[in-house]
Amino acid sequence: MDSEQPHVEDQISLSKYSKRVILETILGRPDGGVGLIGRRIVVGGWVKSSREFRKEPEVQAPEALGPKDVSCVEVLQSRLPFFRSIIKVFGGDHHRMRDKLDTIIPKPPQPSISILQISDGSCVSSLRVLVDSALASPSHVMPTGTCILAEGIVQKPSLQDKEIIELKAEKILHVGLVDQDRYPLSKKRLPLELLRDSTHFRPRTTTVASVMRIRNALTQATNTFFHENRFLYVQVPIITTTDSEGSSKIFQVTTLPAKQKADDQSAATDDFEGVKLEIIKATIKEKSKQVEQLKRSDSNKEAVAAAIQDLKKTTELASQLEAKQKQKSGKHSVQTNNFSEDFFSCKTYLTVSGRLHLESYASALGNVYSFGPRFHANKFDSRSFWPRCGWLSLKWLFLNLSSDVSIENFYTFLMQFQDSMECAIDFLKFICKWILENCTEDLKFVSKRVDKLVVDRLQLIVTGPFEKISYTEAVEVLNKVTERKFETKVEWGASLNEEHESYLTEEIYKKPLIIYNHPKELKPFNVRLNDDGKTAAAFDIIVPKVGALIRGSQSEERFNMLSTRIKELGLEKKQYEWYLDLRKHGSVRCCGFSFLFDPLVLYATGLNDVRDAVPFPRSFGKANN
Amino acid sequence: MDSEQPHVEDQISLSKYSKRVILETILGRPDGGVGLIGRRIVVGGWVKSSREFRKEPEVQAPEALGPKDVSCVEVLQSRLPFFRSIIKVFGGDHHRMRDKLDTIIPKPPQPSISILQISDGSCVSSLRVLVDSALASPSHVMPTGTCILAEGIVQKPSLQDKEIIELKAEKILHVGLVDQDRYPLSKKRLPLELLRDSTHFRPRTTTVASVMRIRNALTQATNTFFHENRFLYVQVPIITTTDSEGSSKIFQVTTLPAKQKADDQSAATDDFEGVKLEIIKATIKEKSKQVEQLKRSDSNKEAVAAAIQDLKKTTELASQLEAKQKQKSGKHSVQTNNFSEDFFSCKTYLTVSGRLHLESYASALGNVYSFGPRFHANKFDSRSFWPRCGWLSLKWLFLNLSSDVSIENFYTFLMQFQDSMECAIDFLKFICKWILENCTEDLKFVSKRVDKLVVDRLQLIVTGPFEKISYTEAVEVLNKVTERKFETKVEWGASLNEEHESYLTEEIYKKPLIIYNHPKELKPFNVRLNDDGKTAAAFDIIVPKVGALIRGSQSEERFNMLSTRIKELGLEKKQYEWYLDLRKHGSVRCCGFSFLFDPLVLYATGLNDVRDAVPFPRSFGKANN
Repeated sequence: MDSEQPHVEDQISLSKYSKRVILETILGRPDGGVGLIGRRIVVGGWVKSSREFRKEPEVQAPEALGPKDVSCVEVLQSRLPFFRSIIKVFGGDHHRMRDKLDTIIPKPPQPSISILQISDGSCVSSLRVLVDSALASPSHVMPTGTCILAEGIVQKPSLQDKEIIELKAEKILHVGLVDQDRYPLSKKRLPLELLRDSTHFRPRTTTVASVMRIRNALTQATNTFFHENRFLYVQVPIITTTDSEGSSKIFQVTTLPAKQKADDQSAATDDFEGVKLEIIKATIKEKSKQVEQLKRSDSNKEAVAAAIQDLKKTTELASQLEAKQKQKSGKHSVQTNNFSEDFFSCKTYLTVSGRLHLESYASALGNVYSFGPRFHANKFDSRSFWPRCGWLSLKWLFLNLSSDVSIENFYTFLMQFQDSMECAIDFLKFICKWILENCTEDLKFVSKRVDKLVVDRLQLIVTGPFEKISYTEAVEVLNKVTERKFETKVEWGASLNEEHESYLTEEIYKKPLIIYNHPKELKPFNVRLNDDGKTAAAFDIIVPKVGALIRGSQSEERFNMLSTRIKELGLEKKQYEWYLDLRKHGSVRCCGFSFLFDPLVLYATGLNDVRDAVPFPRSFGKANN
Repeated sequence: MDSEQPHVEDQISLSKYSKRVILETILGRPDGGVGLIGRRIVVGGWVKSSREFRKEPEVQAPEALGPKDVSCVEVLQSRLPFFRSIIKVFGGDHHRMRDKLDTIIPKPPQPSISILQISDGSCVSSLRVLVDSALASPSHVMPTGTCILAEGIVQKPSLQDKEIIELKAEKILHVGLVDQDRYPLSKKRLPLELLRDSTHFRPRTTTVASVMRIRNALTQATNTFFHENRFLYVQVPIITTTDSEGSSKIFQVTTLPAKQKADDQSAATDDFEGVKLEIIKATIKEKSKQVEQLKRSDSNKEAVAAAIQDLKKTTELASQLEAKQKQKSGKHSVQTNNFSEDFFSCKTYLTVSGRLHLESYASALGNVYSFGPRFHANKFDSRSFWPRCGWLSLKWLFLNLSSDVSIENFYTFLMQFQDSMECAIDFLKFICKWILENCTEDLKFVSKRVDKLVVDRLQLIVTGPFEKISYTEAVEVLNKVTERKFETKVEWGASLNEEHESYLTEEIYKKPLIIYNHPKELKPFNVRLNDDGKTAAAFDIIVPKVGALIRGSQSEERFNMLSTRIKELGLEKKQYEWYLDLRKHGSVRCCGFSFLFDPLVLYATGLNDVRDAVPFPRSFGKANN
C-alpha cells in the first residue's frame, strides 16, 4: 500500500482539457499534497503575493555566476538591492523603478529566486512556486496579479513556515504581465465597496472567489434538489407582455429609441424627490425635538439660536421641494406611444416574476421549476430602508438590485397547503446542508474574514425546527412587545416591515419562521383566497440576518374568484386573459414558492450587500460593463 | 420474494409533497404496473380522450335503479342515448347539448361509466381511469382537457385492448371543468403551427410535453457535464453596456418611454422593406423567365398577355418600393438622446453574448460556464433564409427567435487549441448519450410522430468520429462540387452559408464536422489571430439537420493585437476598456465555446422550427404572454 508513488496518475486530477493540475486537487488532499512530493506537474494561477530571495554569492555555483572577471555591470548589479532600498525609503514605486533600472542596466542572470504564492481560483489556499531568476525576471513574475503557467517538481518546503509543499519551477510556459501602477488589486485587502468598481477583476480576490464558489455550490444544490424531487426545468421568458402584476417598477424592452425628458421619467424623478422630502421632514421633526430640549435645558442662548436657525433652513428646503413637487404633479400628460411599430408590435417588459408562465407548465406537466433573473426597476427598497440603514444614510439607494436571481417552482395536485411549506423547508435544509458538506474550506475562510456566525446560521436551518405562526398571531405577538419601539406601528392589514420580521425571527423565536395566511391585500392577485374572505393562502419564510428568503402561496384555481380579484385591483384584464384561460379549462390546484437566491448567498457568506454577492451587479445609476 | 404485496410502499413513488402517485412511476415500471394490481392510490391528470360505457339495465342491481315505479323522468332518462344520437346526426355539439339536457332533466344516478385516458405530463403513456356516473357526471369528466384527481384501486383491464392496467375510481377529489367549445385543444392532433397561438396550453399535448421533457433532460445533462469537469457556474448579466460586438441588432433596456416614428425605427423599417424589395426582384426574374418560356412554347396569346401584365404589376411595385427607400435614405438625422436620465445613467442592452463577462471570471477562477438566454433583435436570419425555406416563403421572417438559450464556457491555461475542440466534442457526446439513456420513451414517441431518424442522428454523435477540416479545405472541397449548384458562390473569405455547411456534413462527410481557422473577418474581434495573419483560431461544429451547434475560439490574449482589432473594426473602444484591462493585467490564454441550446433540441426531437421547441417563443411581431 505504501510503495513508492503507487498509481501516481490517480493521485492528482488533471484539468481534463489541458495538462494543468487544478490546485484544489493538490492542496485540498487530506495530506495537503505531501504524497505528491517528487512529481513533475504543470500549474497555473495568478500571483497573490511574492518575495524575492537573494542567493548569497558563496552558495552559487561558479558556472551560474558566469566568468569570474567582475564587469562594471556586475558591480552595479550587485548594488541593486541597495539602490532599491533607497528608492523605497523615498517612497518610489519599487517595481516600477526596478523596471527602469533593468532597462538601464543590461540583464545578466540575476542570482535570486522569486517566491510566489499563486492561486488559480479553485480553492482558498495558494501554492508556493519558486522561480529562479534564470527562468524569469523577478520584475516580470513578482507583481501581484501576474499570470503564470509553470512546469516543475513538487518538493518539501525549503523555508520553515506553514507551507507543507512547494513547487520548484523548471520551465515557465506563460507569463501574463501586470501594469502594477494601474492594476486595481495591487494593494492588499481592498474593502469590498472599492472592489465594486472592478467587477471584472474582483473574483481574483480570495473573498470574492470564495463567495462565487459558494454561489456555484448553491446553484448546483438547487438543481439537484428539484431534479431529485422530479421537478422539470422550464425556461420562462425574460421578455414578457405581462407587466408587474401591479407590484413594482419595471424595465421596458424596445428597439425604438427612447424619448428625452419624458413624462414617465419625471414621474420617476418625483419618486426620488418624494423620498428626499420624507427624509427632510423626519430631520425637521428630530431637530424640533432638539430645539425643545435645548430650550428646556437652559442652554446658552447662542446654541438655541443656532439650532433654531438651522431648523428654519431645513424647513425652507422642505417647502421648496414640496412646492416643486406640487407644480410637477399637474404636468403629467397622457402617453400615446404606438407600440405597433416596436419589435414585438406591442409593449414588452423584462419579467419581474416567472410564476404565471411557470404555472401554465405546471398545469400540464405537474411539478416544474425555473431558475433565472427577474428585474425590478426600483430605485430603492423601501422595506429595507428605514430599519437597517438609518434614515440619514443614502446607501439604500443602491440596495435593491435591478436583477435578482429567483427560483420559482410549482407543483400541482397538492393535497394540502401545508405540504407546500414542507417542500420549502426541505429545500432550504437541503441546500444549506449541501454547502456545509461541500464548501468546508470556503466557509472556514468567510467565517474568519467576513462573519464568524456563518456556519452556526447554516446549522440553524439544517438542524433546527421552523416556527409556524399565522400573520394574525404575528401581529398579536408584535403588539405585545414593549422593550422595542418600532419605526412603523404594527396593525392588522399592514405589511410587516423588515424590522418586524427580523425582531420576530432574531429576538422572539430565535429560529427560522414561517408566517402564513396574510391579508389578501398584501399578496398578488392570484393567491388563493381563504374561506374567511380576508386572508390569502400564502406564506413567507423569514430567517435571521436577511429576512424573507421564500414567498410561497397556493394559486387561486377558481375562475370567478380570480376574475374578481383582477377587477378589484384594477389590473388590465387583457394582459391576463391567457392566465385566466388556465382556470377556464382543466383548472388544477397548485402551489409554489419563489426563492430569492441572492439573499441566500448573503446568508451563507455573511456578506451584507447583494452587490458583493452577484457576479455583475446592476443597480440604480450603475451598470459597469 | 414473490410473497403477497411485498414492501408495497417501495413499489410506487409518491409525489413527495402530495399523496398523488406520478404516473411515470406506475406506467414506466418494467411490468407496466401489473405488480400494483389491488393497490389503492391517488392519481391526477388531464383527460386526453374518453368514451362512455352504458351499463345495461339488466346488469344493474335493483337498489341502484331506485323504486320500481318508472317515473316520467326515468322514461326520458332511458331515452337519452337516443336523443343524443339524433343530436349528433344533426351536427350539434354532443357535450354541450347534453349539458342542456342535463339541465332540463333532473339528475338521477346515471347508469354509465366514463372511461378516461388521463396524462399527468410525467410520461408519454396515459392511464385508463374508470369513473362511475354515480361518482361524477360524464358531462363533467369526459371532455378532453378536464383535470381530475381521483383515488381508486389498480385493477386488471376490464376491456380487452392494449392497456395492461386501469384504475377504478372510488373517490373524485377534484375536477377542473373544460369549456369545450372554447378549449383550443378540444380537437385531436392539431398541427404545431396552430399550437403556437396557445403556448400556455400546448404542453398538454403529447408531442410538446415530450419535447419539453427532452429539453429538461438536455439542461440537466449540460449542468452535469460541466460540473463533473469542474467548471464553476457564473451568472452573466442580462443587462449590459457592451453592445453587439458589431455583429447583430440588439434590444435596448430602458425606463424612458420610447419615441414615436423615430429614426432608428425607420432604419429598421428600411431593413424590412429592403428584404421585401429583394424578394420582389427575385420574383421579377422568375416571372420574366416564365414569360420567355411561354413565348417560346407558342402558348395561347391570352396566357402570354396575362403573364406580361402580371410581370408589369410586380415591376411597378418594385420601383415604388425603391423610390420610397431612396427618399427615406436622405432623411436620417443624428440621434442625441441623453441617457444620463435613464435608469442606469447610460445606454443599456439585452446581452447578445455572455462571453466577454464570462472571460473575466475565467481570468480568476479558471474553468467557468454560463447557461442562459441571449437576445438578438433580428427580423430574419439571413443564413437560413435562402436555402431552407425557399425564396417565396415568408416563414423565415419568424425563424430567428429573439432569445436563444446559449451555453458558454471558458477554460484557462489551455495548452493547445485542439483541446478546446476535444472538450466540445466530449460535451456533445455526453449530452446525446444522456438523453438516449434517460429519455427512451420520449425518443420513441418523437421518432414515431415527428421524425424517425432522431435516434440514428443522436447515435451519429455518440459513436461516430468527427471530421476536422480547415476553413480553407472546406472552401476547396466545395469548389470541386459539380453535382449541386449553390445559391451563393463559395469564395475564400466569405462566410459559409447554411447550404454549404449542410452539404458538407450531410452529403460529403456524412458525419459531424469541425471547420476551423476561419478568415479573421468572419469572427468577432476577440478571437486570437493565427500566425498567418489572415485566419483566426476559431472552430464551428456542424451537424446534419441543424447546422452549426457550437462556435468555439481561442481568445486573443495579446493586448496590442486586441487593441488593433478593435480599431480596425471601428468598435467603440470605451465600451471594451474593461475587457482590454484583462489583457493589461495578468492576461491568460483561454478558450471557450458557445453552444446553441435550442437547435440542439431540434436535433434531438426532429422538430423543424425553434418556436415549437422553446416554452415561450418570442419572434418578430410576436410575444403572446
